[in-house]
Amino acid sequence: MVQGAGSARGAAQSAEQVAEMAARYEAIRAFTESLCVTLQPEDYVVQSMPDASPVKWHLAHTSWFFETFVLEPAARARRAPFTSFHPRYGYLFNSYYVSVGARHERPQRGMLTRPSVEEVYEYRRHVDAAMRTLWGELADGAHADLIATIEVGLHHEQQHQELLLTDVKHLFAQNPLRPALRTGASPARGISGPELRPTDFSPFEEGLRSVGHGGGGFAFDNESPRHRTFVEAFALADRPMTNGEYLSFMAAGGYRRPELWLSEGWDAVQKQGWEAPLYWEREGDHWQVFTLHGLREIAPSEPVCHVSFYEADACARWAGARLPTEMEWEVAAESALVQGNFAESGWLNPRPTQVDEPARGPRAMFGDVWEWTASAYLPYPGYQAWAGSLGEYNGKFMSGQMVLRGGSCFTPASHMRTTYRNFFPPSARWQASGIRLAR
Amino acid sequence: MVQGAGSARGAAQSAEQVAEMAARYEAIRAFTESLCVTLQPEDYVVQSMPDASPVKWHLAHTSWFFETFVLEPAARARRAPFTSFHPRYGYLFNSYYVSVGARHERPQRGMLTRPSVEEVYEYRRHVDAAMRTLWGELADGAHADLIATIEVGLHHEQQHQELLLTDVKHLFAQNPLRPALRTGASPARGISGPELRPTDFSPFEEGLRSVGHGGGGFAFDNESPRHRTFVEAFALADRPMTNGEYLSFMAAGGYRRPELWLSEGWDAVQKQGWEAPLYWEREGDHWQVFTLHGLREIAPSEPVCHVSFYEADACARWAGARLPTEMEWEVAAESALVQGNFAESGWLNPRPTQVDEPARGPRAMFGDVWEWTASAYLPYPGYQAWAGSLGEYNGKFMSGQMVLRGGSCFTPASHMRTTYRNFFPPSARWQASGIRLAR
Amino acid sequence: MVQGAGSARGAAQSAEQVAEMAARYEAIRAFTESLCVTLQPEDYVVQSMPDASPVKWHLAHTSWFFETFVLEPAARARRAPFTSFHPRYGYLFNSYYVSVGARHERPQRGMLTRPSVEEVYEYRRHVDAAMRTLWGELADGAHADLIATIEVGLHHEQQHQELLLTDVKHLFAQNPLRPALRTGASPARGISGPELRPTDFSPFEEGLRSVGHGGGGFAFDNESPRHRTFVEAFALADRPMTNGEYLSFMAAGGYRRPELWLSEGWDAVQKQGWEAPLYWEREGDHWQVFTLHGLREIAPSEPVCHVSFYEADACARWAGARLPTEMEWEVAAESALVQGNFAESGWLNPRPTQVDEPARGPRAMFGDVWEWTASAYLPYPGYQAWAGSLGEYNGKFMSGQMVLRGGSCFTPASHMRTTYRNFFPPSARWQASGIRLAR
Amino acid sequence: MVQGAGSARGAAQSAEQVAEMAARYEAIRAFTESLCVTLQPEDYVVQSMPDASPVKWHLAHTSWFFETFVLEPAARARRAPFTSFHPRYGYLFNSYYVSVGARHERPQRGMLTRPSVEEVYEYRRHVDAAMRTLWGELADGAHADLIATIEVGLHHEQQHQELLLTDVKHLFAQNPLRPALRTGASPARGISGPELRPTDFSPFEEGLRSVGHGGGGFAFDNESPRHRTFVEAFALADRPMTNGEYLSFMAAGGYRRPELWLSEGWDAVQKQGWEAPLYWEREGDHWQVFTLHGLREIAPSEPVCHVSFYEADACARWAGARLPTEMEWEVAAESALVQGNFAESGWLNPRPTQVDEPARGPRAMFGDVWEWTASAYLPYPGYQAWAGSLGEYNGKFMSGQMVLRGGSCFTPASHMRTTYRNFFPPSARWQASGIRLAR
Repeated sequence: MVQGAGSARGAAQSAEQVAEMAARYEAIRAFTESLCVTLQPEDYVVQSMPDASPVKWHLAHTSWFFETFVLEPAARARRAPFTSFHPRYGYLFNSYYVSVGARHERPQRGMLTRPSVEEVYEYRRHVDAAMRTLWGELADGAHADLIATIEVGLHHEQQHQELLLTDVKHLFAQNPLRPALRTGASPARGISGPELRPTDFSPFEEGLRSVGHGGGGFAFDNESPRHRTFVEAFALADRPMTNGEYLSFMAAGGYRRPELWLSEGWDAVQKQGWEAPLYWEREGDHWQVFTLHGLREIAPSEPVCHVSFYEADACARWAGARLPTEMEWEVAAESALVQGNFAESGWLNPRPTQVDEPARGPRAMFGDVWEWTASAYLPYPGYQAWAGSLGEYNGKFMSGQMVLRGGSCFTPASHMRTTYRNFFPPSARWQASGIRLAR
Repeated sequence: MVQGAGSARGAAQSAEQVAEMAARYEAIRAFTESLCVTLQPEDYVVQSMPDASPVKWHLAHTSWFFETFVLEPAARARRAPFTSFHPRYGYLFNSYYVSVGARHERPQRGMLTRPSVEEVYEYRRHVDAAMRTLWGELADGAHADLIATIEVGLHHEQQHQELLLTDVKHLFAQNPLRPALRTGASPARGISGPELRPTDFSPFEEGLRSVGHGGGGFAFDNESPRHRTFVEAFALADRPMTNGEYLSFMAAGGYRRPELWLSEGWDAVQKQGWEAPLYWEREGDHWQVFTLHGLREIAPSEPVCHVSFYEADACARWAGARLPTEMEWEVAAESALVQGNFAESGWLNPRPTQVDEPARGPRAMFGDVWEWTASAYLPYPGYQAWAGSLGEYNGKFMSGQMVLRGGSCFTPASHMRTTYRNFFPPSARWQASGIRLAR
Repeated sequence: MVQGAGSARGAAQSAEQVAEMAARYEAIRAFTESLCVTLQPEDYVVQSMPDASPVKWHLAHTSWFFETFVLEPAARARRAPFTSFHPRYGYLFNSYYVSVGARHERPQRGMLTRPSVEEVYEYRRHVDAAMRTLWGELADGAHADLIATIEVGLHHEQQHQELLLTDVKHLFAQNPLRPALRTGASPARGISGPELRPTDFSPFEEGLRSVGHGGGGFAFDNESPRHRTFVEAFALADRPMTNGEYLSFMAAGGYRRPELWLSEGWDAVQKQGWEAPLYWEREGDHWQVFTLHGLREIAPSEPVCHVSFYEADACARWAGARLPTEMEWEVAAESALVQGNFAESGWLNPRPTQVDEPARGPRAMFGDVWEWTASAYLPYPGYQAWAGSLGEYNGKFMSGQMVLRGGSCFTPASHMRTTYRNFFPPSARWQASGIRLAR
Repeated sequence: MVQGAGSARGAAQSAEQVAEMAARYEAIRAFTESLCVTLQPEDYVVQSMPDASPVKWHLAHTSWFFETFVLEPAARARRAPFTSFHPRYGYLFNSYYVSVGARHERPQRGMLTRPSVEEVYEYRRHVDAAMRTLWGELADGAHADLIATIEVGLHHEQQHQELLLTDVKHLFAQNPLRPALRTGASPARGISGPELRPTDFSPFEEGLRSVGHGGGGFAFDNESPRHRTFVEAFALADRPMTNGEYLSFMAAGGYRRPELWLSEGWDAVQKQGWEAPLYWEREGDHWQVFTLHGLREIAPSEPVCHVSFYEADACARWAGARLPTEMEWEVAAESALVQGNFAESGWLNPRPTQVDEPARGPRAMFGDVWEWTASAYLPYPGYQAWAGSLGEYNGKFMSGQMVLRGGSCFTPASHMRTTYRNFFPPSARWQASGIRLAR
């Protein structure tokens, strides 16, 4: 079904390969549920804004994905009758796949007090059991065409792990009681620590470079094909911008100076009344921030987070710099290891970048915060959407959005890679989005 | 605190009187909770539209009412320190009492996944326990000034019993799974029964009449003072209009003929796309209706329900009649017993009116459906709002709303009386509102 | 066509009667145009808000009224072919008569740069010429059935004279150049004059009274039938509230005290940012007001004008009083002469009430400012809308509006009478609406 | 003031150069007014939507530009007092230059019935006279720093010539009378002519190419710097897509097939109810189109016009092709002459492309219709906004818009060049925007 979704496509898998995939499936499904252990049933239900979804919906939708795109075709291939877990779940838990059929409207997801949380977990159990049956058949060489789709399903579930966290954070932030998802040791390293060294910029030479996914491992269709691009000489900051630096931008009147802003950004500032990043709250003469560990003081040396593209762009202009293009970012990240502060750390908040000496190249390109780029989210030259329903996965969103790179503290580590292109509208702030400067 | 709220005000109560009030308190509080027995925790949380509130909010707000207007003043009277159950509940569960302090915004009530359902029930237990302490002091003659407020609190809780039911109905109706609050025996009496006899109109003579609450028992401030009004001769239908009759209005193009509608009503028809009462769903060539027992066929002989004032007005015009004024309604209801199909029946749906022979006066004036009147909700001559914060209870809503009379299948029986004035905007449809014709 | 529209209906008229009507027609049509003499073509075109209409539209619509409801039926009666002045004007200049056919949408009236002003005046000439032909036939006894409709047409044109003035005022107020419709002698009598004496209240006794139009002269259908109503004893202010008094309300924090306001009114204050009447502009530490003579200082002894019902209601509450019902107003006005500062004075602004000695009853009931009443605009008992298309004139607006009484400085004098019921939504401020207190 | 705005900057001009510029000034100013000769005063006033401006406003704003950015600095340089034509025009006719001061709000431009059309023409005369005085000083070597700004002012006025035409077209299209700006010979060449030959695609080889403005003549800041870009091999259609081809897209269900659309585009289709290009009107079973010559039949061989980016993108997908990037477009246009059907032809409508034999490269790259590209409007590498207030001209709009290339039948010929980047939001349809396919 999915063409070009990684190296495994279409070829029968060895028993070891299947076993590896089955183990990853179990681990990823379990990690999703581990994120919810402190939630009460009430917390699973509410949709705090149209862009967010209830936790329950994330849990069910990722299961629907496997049921619809893997289990049902497998049954067809066996010429066996297929009975979905519930006749209406296809309608309730389809996100946006027009070709699959009618859907419950996105802004209405929060109306669904039923199925209950318990029933949704049963749905997950049901799908997991059916997947376990499938592994055997796969090891016997059947259903080779489904391998690539299962791979997509795993990465899809990881995307929803991140969204689940950002959506819960948004939900809890609406509550004057300021509930915390995680308690225990405070993640506020850096509150009283020394200010970081000033940003250094690492130079990169001009040249004709190749970017995009070149095969070897999984990638989404929007990362392909690998292609040449000419990049002018540029310099990239050695670390993301910090809260302390952002406070300077604010102190310099950043939110009151239209000349720093794109026209649409200035409109947003005025209509939304922005005067600080999302989740910052003024408390007397200083600022606090709401985190998944609750409300606490701003840590000046942490990367600034939950800013829109407009804020990132304005702050870069104020700093006499600009945002990097996604090509520049990828060129700079090419030699870096894909490691950093990801969701598995349990920190669930950006951490100060360790830059103890003059930087030898950009640090912390991965994890902590998604980095807004100056690039609109558009198809690469020669882009082909996946065939079939999964063709709706990425391509149809290629207008009105900006690219972010590098993953965040809410992204699972194994979900990230150098060529990964995330995308959100320029006004979005509820993702863990931050700023890296370029020149 | 409350002036004029029934006969008990300001006078110390006998031990019997206090015991009677305590018993009523316990019964009313228990009845509220009995309405929720089939709900799951998820069902308590969601707000399906800005006009509705989550079940959890109803449970907490009614407790906040007693805590704020009874328990805290009682503590002050004792010169005892007062600790509210939770320091933020005053903010979260104040509805609209500006004079009491800041409030969580109404359309945000559905964002509160915490406090949990369990914590809200603890809050209720806490308030109930404190009230039990108070009864003793009241029997000893203390706090006589609080009696009237407690009385208000009981009627207030009954109002929220009705809203809880209409709000759950609205919530469940949003869910494609069509959950039911009540299962078991179907309440669809009248689906296949014989059509009712045509409506008879009972005549009433012109005259100077007195209307409004004249003392004796509790009444809200908006029912006073009792006053004279001149009523022309009129005739009133012997029963509410039925679904069958309303289907005739629909079949006659009622929703497509602007000449039948008030100008604002016609706007609403077009903007909202109305073509039937709320909760009706077309299924092929016939109509089904969503009830608290789930989806079922329309019963032609049941009173039509969940229509707006605009629909009631247009349908009356189509029928060559009109809606009664609230004065006409009260005059006609004066001699009727306040009994009918109320919430206690557990039916939770209107029932066909029993009119087996030519009517000797209007039937079913109480219960089944609230009856829209042709009267705007305005103060009676000489109206005085209650003193203090409870002055915000009724008076400030006296614009933009129409009066409804008689109570519905969701109203507790002991909450109703002949002079009772309910009020909603003319476009509201989620209350159990129906039609009685006049000429 | 029009039933019950004045005494003349259906009966042939004497030559004198026809001549009188023809003379009135000419005078009214000329007065409309006299209001426009200082306008430039550009001023005729623009619609400054959906509730207002362009001057050009008023000029054309009033002509369309005669063409459609008088000239076309007359042609039909003669069995003569009828050619309208322009085949599309029926579409463009029908206001809201659904039964007459499709219409250009109200909020789009300002899109019509064509027909030009010149063409609209030609349209008027065309209709006037055809009317002149008709008078002869009427004097010969023909078309007796049209007399009542012509009478309606005359009053209809007078209503549009008032709207033309209020709409031009609203339009000019949007322009930072602050254009004036009238120049020359300033109308600001009362700016520096002595404050008026405090308001006196005149008492009226309780009793069963008759109100509404009782025949004799023209009246709209909504003023009938004359009927009995019981009025409690009340007292009415001897003059409208002044700007000076309203400034005291403002100084007392009137716009910042929710307890003074109806709930919908308080919403309006906050959403609209009201802090003074419409057309008031703060200039340093004092207030100016935009009038049809341009911008000038507030005159403290002039009646306050351009307030909404909500403001009138809140200010009355602040003053320890209330607004009168329309029944009280009519009872109080019964013995007063219908005279005052009307449009013919050319003053086009309210004038201070002359109350030189203790009042012997309310003054200035007519002219200056429309007086908001506490009554919703609803049908009188036994109300019958006119037959035919003119039945849409008044009846279908009987929801969501409040009654105003007495006419204003923009109303033609001969248009006013004691039983006249004007109506606007409670938030409307662009009519010359003011406040008279009652108790 | 303007840095880098063409070759003339900062250097004193010879008398011949000044004379040439003065002649161009006169010609451009006169051409603006020639576009208005058939307008009536009423037509100059109205704003048909927030994106459009009244004709009067265009006439005044272009004059304000010269007054503010040229005449006032010239007076300062002379140390002479400067009096603007009217003290409020700076407020009324500033478009969006935040750094220049407060402005009348854009959506309120249509409220300004004053200044009259006559006064606006006087304003133009006044500015023109002052410019004539300036030419002498410039020939004497003074004000060399203003030359570049004057050049911008000329191109600015040409941009408003185009907007004036598109805004009048939009305004007249709102009027059921369907007024025409131009009468006389019909521009509907191609209605009954033979269908054009099928589109041919011309191939272009991959390579590292240079794009952007390289000096020599005027260009806007957003066209610079000239820079290298790697372009993959591609093929470009030899002509714009025609109405006939677009009708095939429509007949194939183009507006009802979500799989052809970007997600935002499909939303727009549903919310706006699009089912054909703007200005198309269904008449029975065929389509008519509103043009500046009035309503007429669709001409199948004319380029399709007034489509949004979303429609262009969906139609290209349906055709098995895609839109070109702006780099591809510029590479393909490099060798073409900048000539075509521009505003000077007076045709004011696209014309069928003459492709009489197999194409030897793309035709009609210039004029007729702006061609949507697949490129978001973003800064070129190393982009520098002009210094000072004119820095707001282009840079701050670099988000949320797509690039269009080549000019249209409403663009003045001398305004166009190969590197010109026009930009509009992807939903915009009131510009003369069309489709050229690429592969």
